[in-house]
Amino acid sequence: MAKCDETYPVWRHEEGRPARRERDDVVREEPLEIRVAGRGVGVTMRTPGHDEELVLGFLVGEGVLTKPEEVEHVRRCGQSPGDVLDVIVAGPVAVDFARLTRHVFASSSCGVCGSATIEAVRKQFPALRAGPRVAAGVLHGLAATLRDSQPTFDKTGGLHAAGLFDATGRLLLAREDVGRHNAVDKVVGHALRAGLLPLSAHVLLVSGRVSFEIVQKALGAGVAVVAAVSAPSSLAIDLAEASNITLIGFLRPGRFNVYAHPERIDGIG
Amino acid sequence: MAKCDETYPVWRHEEGRPARRERDDVVREEPLEIRVAGRGVGVTMRTPGHDEELVLGFLVGEGVLTKPEEVEHVRRCGQSPGDVLDVIVAGPVAVDFARLTRHVFASSSCGVCGSATIEAVRKQFPALRAGPRVAAGVLHGLAATLRDSQPTFDKTGGLHAAGLFDATGRLLLAREDVGRHNAVDKVVGHALRAGLLPLSAHVLLVSGRVSFEIVQKALGAGVAVVAAVSAPSSLAIDLAEASNITLIGFLRPGRFNVYAHPERIDGIG
Repeated sequence: MAKCDETYPVWRHEEGRPARRERDDVVREEPLEIRVAGRGVGVTMRTPGHDEELVLGFLVGEGVLTKPEEVEHVRRCGQSPGDVLDVIVAGPVAVDFARLTRHVFASSSCGVCGSATIEAVRKQFPALRAGPRVAAGVLHGLAATLRDSQPTFDKTGGLHAAGLFDATGRLLLAREDVGRHNAVDKVVGHALRAGLLPLSAHVLLVSGRVSFEIVQKALGAGVAVVAAVSAPSSLAIDLAEASNITLIGFLRPGRFNVYAHPERIDGIG
Repeated sequence: MAKCDETYPVWRHEEGRPARRERDDVVREEPLEIRVAGRGVGVTMRTPGHDEELVLGFLVGEGVLTKPEEVEHVRRCGQSPGDVLDVIVAGPVAVDFARLTRHVFASSSCGVCGSATIEAVRKQFPALRAGPRVAAGVLHGLAATLRDSQPTFDKTGGLHAAGLFDATGRLLLAREDVGRHNAVDKVVGHALRAGLLPLSAHVLLVSGRVSFEIVQKALGAGVAVVAAVSAPSSLAIDLAEASNITLIGFLRPGRFNVYAHPERIDGIG
């Protein structure tokens, strides 16, 4: 199990006191190269740990994987200090490398915009149909539950988290990472391996804000209820609306906002 | 001037009260394609506004641009809804497209790791030599000053900010964006155009956390003092240490932590 944090010297300054030289726990950030069938498809800056789940979840979000049997195995290429994981997919899985890398590289036509982006995602993933009903009272408790499961955040203050809950508010899985998208990938990769996809009866909670990318990953994993502790972006709401995903923001003690598809929440909509 | 936010319907839920259907200001997130000399080098999800500054600052951080005269012009390619900016560089500027895209694409060798990443950045940008001396009392005031300059954050709660200060704590420029790295690019792009690079007498403050990528962008712009409201990552500290950048985290009222090169701060180190 990789360590999520390491210790660094720090000079602590408080007004009116001499600076103290101490040591501080800092969240680890290291690059991880993701390969599929030997071909590099990207490098992500992540917190080491649960790396295989991260790359598998990333590939679910990109539409490459939907079932655990599609993964032949995951190979660590090179030894420390090289962090390279190569996903060997099963024979029948078609990998469209052009599409896999399109989200970072430009298309050749002058047509990049929010609605075109949503159209492209919608072509890849149809709108969700199923989804749980969730009581408002259940949602109230989720953020505190996720927070309690974040040991590294308490030490470093530098980690995002993603938590997977059932519709009664029970935490099934939590992952931490310096990047919010990586924490979601780790949760989804674990769910793929456990044969839980699509996550149509579940609620995904992310610390902090919710952007387009997070909703895209939720859609790829079939999550119909996505909640965030902080604000959503416009494109996150647009994609949730178009994909029949319930999107909750500002999930704080005793209150929350629903930005799309409130009909899954008892007592709202 | 592009709007940073737009209005969405929201269902506000508070415990013990019926849900209210209202309208909420939400931060805008839209894709922007960056091209150089007609070739696509990436797509970033950003908050519209100051787009030209964003692409210019991005290219400073990638080592392509250092002086305003290296930019022939910036061309908006296609009309709305297409968000594509093409930077036409001046004749003598050599653009290494392979290097420009390497930060998102894998190299062919099994050698990705934190120290190799820092080595690669250090080859591109030598360690900084100059830098201001800053009084601890000046640092105390920066976060509140930046926060006061964030009108969209107040409305949406969804924006990051980057602020450029002089060594006396005067705010010279602030930019907001849904992505922290974009906010920094916008500040650096403005500084390029204004002929201010390298920013060797300045302090850069970012909202939230500070990752490797932020320190890399600061290094590219020659910023020797980088401060963040929240936690640094391990690789951010490592790069700051190796590049002679003073790195400050947890900049809160009356206190802060210094993680690298405290010798520029009066009264510390």
